[in-house]
Amino acid sequence: MAHDRFVRPHPAAAVTAEIDLRAAFSGKRVMITGGLGFIGSTLALHLVQLGAELLLVDNLLAEYGGNAFNIAPIRRQVTVEIADIRDVRAMRSLLPGCDYLFNLAAQTSHLDSMKDPETDLAINCRAQLTLLGACREVCPDIVVVYASTRQIYGRALYLPVDEKHPLRPVDVNGVNKMAGEAYHLLFHDVYGLSATALRLTNTYGPRMRIKDARQTFIGAWLRAVLEDRPFEVWDGAQLRDLTYVDDAAAAFLLAAVTPATQGRVFNLGGERAVSLKQLADALVLANGGGAYEVRDFPRERKRIDIGDYYADDALFREVTGWRAAVPLAEGLSRSLAYFREYRAEYV
Amino acid sequence: MAHDRFVRPHPAAAVTAEIDLRAAFSGKRVMITGGLGFIGSTLALHLVQLGAELLLVDNLLAEYGGNAFNIAPIRRQVTVEIADIRDVRAMRSLLPGCDYLFNLAAQTSHLDSMKDPETDLAINCRAQLTLLGACREVCPDIVVVYASTRQIYGRALYLPVDEKHPLRPVDVNGVNKMAGEAYHLLFHDVYGLSATALRLTNTYGPRMRIKDARQTFIGAWLRAVLEDRPFEVWDGAQLRDLTYVDDAAAAFLLAAVTPATQGRVFNLGGERAVSLKQLADALVLANGGGAYEVRDFPRERKRIDIGDYYADDALFREVTGWRAAVPLAEGLSRSLAYFREYRAEYV
Repeated sequence: MAHDRFVRPHPAAAVTAEIDLRAAFSGKRVMITGGLGFIGSTLALHLVQLGAELLLVDNLLAEYGGNAFNIAPIRRQVTVEIADIRDVRAMRSLLPGCDYLFNLAAQTSHLDSMKDPETDLAINCRAQLTLLGACREVCPDIVVVYASTRQIYGRALYLPVDEKHPLRPVDVNGVNKMAGEAYHLLFHDVYGLSATALRLTNTYGPRMRIKDARQTFIGAWLRAVLEDRPFEVWDGAQLRDLTYVDDAAAAFLLAAVTPATQGRVFNLGGERAVSLKQLADALVLANGGGAYEVRDFPRERKRIDIGDYYADDALFREVTGWRAAVPLAEGLSRSLAYFREYRAEYV
Repeated sequence: MAHDRFVRPHPAAAVTAEIDLRAAFSGKRVMITGGLGFIGSTLALHLVQLGAELLLVDNLLAEYGGNAFNIAPIRRQVTVEIADIRDVRAMRSLLPGCDYLFNLAAQTSHLDSMKDPETDLAINCRAQLTLLGACREVCPDIVVVYASTRQIYGRALYLPVDEKHPLRPVDVNGVNKMAGEAYHLLFHDVYGLSATALRLTNTYGPRMRIKDARQTFIGAWLRAVLEDRPFEVWDGAQLRDLTYVDDAAAAFLLAAVTPATQGRVFNLGGERAVSLKQLADALVLANGGGAYEVRDFPRERKRIDIGDYYADDALFREVTGWRAAVPLAEGLSRSLAYFREYRAEYV
């Protein structure tokens, strides 16, 4: 297939630990919620290579990250269920027999969570509780890895932010993700469910939503440079760290197979912190051209913005051997190459 | 009225700060959710004395703390609305014109939250979000004080627990209360709503639910000694602090009228930490007799139990001038006297 070269994990993203992922996942039944989404589908590509039997669950809602094209390279090797995690009956029927659950389905837009807080609550909070209840009921031995977010910290009181940093979400999405994460830990503590939470920072790469900024502003930036339009950089001085998607996928796999992660939360970070202006420059450089405008934050964004953020992910590196391995320039180049070829499937 | 002597706040619970509560509340329209409940009704008794115009909202669900008898002494001086905070239309129709909202309605049973997590979520999480949305919409200048709980800390990593202690709830109730609290802070931060959260520890006193242990084990203990039955003390060595209900009510009033509390969370504590065995002895002493049995924790309780807990409430004392003023022996005596007279209304 033409896009086979985007299927193979980048060598630099290979897991450095001694853990044999193939032995861990080969022949295992793995469910991914949000399985047609950005990170979920990337994880699926890795897992197919590792010999897992995959069940990808996605509701394919228009404003979310799911896109059937994401799994084009593996579509005959996986089972796809168009189902919503809010549908507990569907979850209860799909989970039996699963060895692993990568729980990535979410409403991810901060702004949408303020405009429609109840939908965010239903997906990021309530559905997590019912999904965990279903696990407990029909597959109590499943290993769950939950995609949490740095958003639950709110504005950083110190940098880099470690897992001990207080939680003070600045938007409804952050509150609900905080609750969703807490349910996972609770089901571990009380019911012995094997569950781990990874607090992701900005993740980027092939297969991300670039139609708009609903997954992260980077999607909107990528689309703009690909379409030869200037993109907007708000403020520009803000610091962020970014995780390339194959690195994030490797983190999920390692979290799942490392018993010492259970019942714990871990930050994921990137190779280093960059200002948004540095990131914009790196994107223009990687693209071989492009323009951006630095402007003030739009008011409705500013009030839910978290300011500077970058993670201390030493704990996760120490416990699992993971490291963010794909440098920013390389990750941006690979992202641009992917979307240059398949842009039509994403806009 | 015969029970007038239970209406007047105990002198020792009088607010020590210079704030003139009468000036602050006289003629003001005050809504209390959970207004027929234990703390809500006590707060109402104080507020009537301060000249406030009261709207008490309660759903009077059988297994919760609401009891119409709680407000018998003031029933002609207040407006009672039997309504549920989950009914956002009702809330939207009741809130306009209110100056203060004491938001106490809750599902409080830890065990019930594990057996029926969705009801706990609907009340302690989702209804908080819609209630705050209604405030923002119909009474954006209202001052809100939210009854949060020490339960959101989970097991104490150090003692006494201050507000910086990490949050790791050990039951569904704790997760949902954590989210409910976070919504309040968020609406303050993002929309400028005046909101404060008080993290209560075990509160006890007249008007509490003694039918069972759904509000706290102390209710069940009180009932047992009043009925000359032995009560059960689990473990016995565990440390707890207790707040007498008039002290808790004073804290709510002070939080509401102290601008420096806005957007912040505060612990409430008691005069000192006691072991459950010491508390049991104090209760027997106050009652002039009684017996208890020390036994192991029941299994389903143990796994959601938080172990030793007592609060550092220095921050709230400093910001508001509040202090826990009613000694344990006195509080227990007053509780016993009340329930000896009105037990029939509570069992």
